[in-house]
Amino acid sequence: MDMTDLFATRAGRMKASEIRELLKLLDQPDIISFAGGIPDPALFPHEAFRQSYAEVLGGASANAALQYQVSEGFLPLRQWIAGEMARIGIPCDEGNIFITSGSQQGLDYLGKLFLSPNDTALVTWPTYLGALQAFSAYEPRYDRLSPAGGNMTPDAYREAATQAGGAVKFAYLVPDFANPSGETLTLAQREAVLDLAEELGIAVIEDAAYAALRYSGEPVPPIAALDALRSGGIDAGRTIYCGSFSKILAPGLRVGWICAPRRLIEKLVLTKQASDLHSPSINQMVVHRVAETHYGAQVERTRAAYHARRDALLKALEAHMPAGVSWSRPEGGMFVWMTLPEGIDAAVLLARAVSEARVAFVPGSAFHADGSGTNTLRLSFTLADERAVTEGIPRLAALIRSALEN
Amino acid sequence: MDMTDLFATRAGRMKASEIRELLKLLDQPDIISFAGGIPDPALFPHEAFRQSYAEVLGGASANAALQYQVSEGFLPLRQWIAGEMARIGIPCDEGNIFITSGSQQGLDYLGKLFLSPNDTALVTWPTYLGALQAFSAYEPRYDRLSPAGGNMTPDAYREAATQAGGAVKFAYLVPDFANPSGETLTLAQREAVLDLAEELGIAVIEDAAYAALRYSGEPVPPIAALDALRSGGIDAGRTIYCGSFSKILAPGLRVGWICAPRRLIEKLVLTKQASDLHSPSINQMVVHRVAETHYGAQVERTRAAYHARRDALLKALEAHMPAGVSWSRPEGGMFVWMTLPEGIDAAVLLARAVSEARVAFVPGSAFHADGSGTNTLRLSFTLADERAVTEGIPRLAALIRSALEN
Repeated sequence: MDMTDLFATRAGRMKASEIRELLKLLDQPDIISFAGGIPDPALFPHEAFRQSYAEVLGGASANAALQYQVSEGFLPLRQWIAGEMARIGIPCDEGNIFITSGSQQGLDYLGKLFLSPNDTALVTWPTYLGALQAFSAYEPRYDRLSPAGGNMTPDAYREAATQAGGAVKFAYLVPDFANPSGETLTLAQREAVLDLAEELGIAVIEDAAYAALRYSGEPVPPIAALDALRSGGIDAGRTIYCGSFSKILAPGLRVGWICAPRRLIEKLVLTKQASDLHSPSINQMVVHRVAETHYGAQVERTRAAYHARRDALLKALEAHMPAGVSWSRPEGGMFVWMTLPEGIDAAVLLARAVSEARVAFVPGSAFHADGSGTNTLRLSFTLADERAVTEGIPRLAALIRSALEN
Repeated sequence: MDMTDLFATRAGRMKASEIRELLKLLDQPDIISFAGGIPDPALFPHEAFRQSYAEVLGGASANAALQYQVSEGFLPLRQWIAGEMARIGIPCDEGNIFITSGSQQGLDYLGKLFLSPNDTALVTWPTYLGALQAFSAYEPRYDRLSPAGGNMTPDAYREAATQAGGAVKFAYLVPDFANPSGETLTLAQREAVLDLAEELGIAVIEDAAYAALRYSGEPVPPIAALDALRSGGIDAGRTIYCGSFSKILAPGLRVGWICAPRRLIEKLVLTKQASDLHSPSINQMVVHRVAETHYGAQVERTRAAYHARRDALLKALEAHMPAGVSWSRPEGGMFVWMTLPEGIDAAVLLARAVSEARVAFVPGSAFHADGSGTNTLRLSFTLADERAVTEGIPRLAALIRSALEN
């Protein structure tokens, strides 16, 4: 038989290779990269991790750290997270908390639970690329969610979904300092999303990966908090909150969580049992220790560092970018979103940026479920040191200016 | 809307709750349990882990250990595994190795890649419960694979699959010291499975979770080795080898691997990128260190301990079990498989065993894709200390004898 066909499976339909190729650029030392959406490792609490691994493996907990454990996750960590959720306005207990291997795994499981082929997922244009990758494995259709206004009527969404051969299953969004747009939804916009979801009878997936990283402006309550208020508690609600330790402690341990109504948590536990049994015991125990002793200080430390880098990047853009180029002024997070004049393709620009200017970024079309947004791009400032903004941004600006002149 | 329906998703179709309930029994200290299929934590290389976490976090590798990394896994670990695969007769390089979060995740990804609803997966009766859970999320049909002979013709398999609305996609089996049966396939049986797979044009998934744990008898080459020989190399073959560090080093770090043709590895990498990005960086780096220095010694140490426990369990069964009860004599692994006289339901027996005899095991029907095997059960000997065999087995035997008399 033709062995090319033997493995011609469903992964062929996923699209991800562009970004992988991009990330390889980071290995070239003379490239100034605004591409990778990764935290600065200099901010990781190295000593706290070192000490916690030694403690967890040194005492009576060593066997538990190295052994199998329950699929829902390490109970003391779930309890700590429930406390943190309550602190930000989402009253809940450990029965509402499920540990995931990074919040990416939460998105994968939610796609697996909710989506059958041709079902509809509502996402913003643009949205987090990893969410599109996770959901696309389950072959949904995407429809556009516009939290700032201009949504279709519930009937129109429903009709379009039926026509496509499925139903609307959830709305996914990153309400705080979104990846990639940097935008934050107002209170009114969050309430409007809940109204729409209620009328459609669908779940809301709130991706809160960056929520702790606010540098300016006033905090807005999580959608899950607003939902709990109007529903009479988290278990009566429809919002699924996805959290992560990757941006505040470290991503390499792969520990995130879902906070949701407990009947959904029960399904997630079964999903995890069939998928990877549980997240690594030892890492959950270590994250629990480091969170208990260092979480608050890490939030402050990380905020201070990225705050300064955001300001420096925005100042450099202001000073150097030509007229016709616009960008977001995020109140937090890791990203500035740039819009070039119509007709300039950011993917074409990237090729020149790398070969001529030795500067990298992520072209925006990858973040659009329909492939639009070709004139947009994402700049990450988490690793943007002084050289990056004083040399990289002028070089990028000069390249854009030359593209505008041709 | 009815909120019960909001989360009425596809997980509802999975079955796993029985086993979860069973495992809770292990918490009751006076229960003698032969149920859990878990390794003995006293055998874990505690000191090597302690030292390796300290070293990985203490030096120049600390940032990499805590940062994101590539989806295929930590290169030096993949190289070490490729060497180990070559050593057991599967010549390959790191391009054939993909790191998973335990071999359970490998099974989940293979189900995701290969199975559409109503496709057919060939499995043995009984087979590993976790494989059924992983595959069932993708809604296949199961057909019976009988490596010892008595398979249907390729045409008959194909016809049945077509009638069910799909195609035969793979054969899954545990050729060495199977969970739950304890059985090991002969060379001729392995070749026959490859012949059948070739005629059907399907992949073979070789679950080698226990392969290193042989206590007696002669080693038989892995199916992947036989396939590479007949195909002219691993990349031309059809066998997907799933390995695990859980039984030799420790399961709590969740590190396993897939060794397969590289065109499949490429699809697995995309699947992982969309699912959890990568397995924890730090755990992969630590497993690499501990494998390099302790793997061989751990194999010897674990074999010696379980060898003695297997022998003691078999001796106790011989001494106490009534006529009409039969069981496997495994050459390795963790399990003895017991068959009761027809008409005795092992699930009913378990309820009495727990309440009257304070002994636990896993009823065999859970391991049968069609729910048959109600008169079978699985005994794990990895945690069977002297009290377990000298007290537990006589109590279980007495209970079976009383059930036979009623």
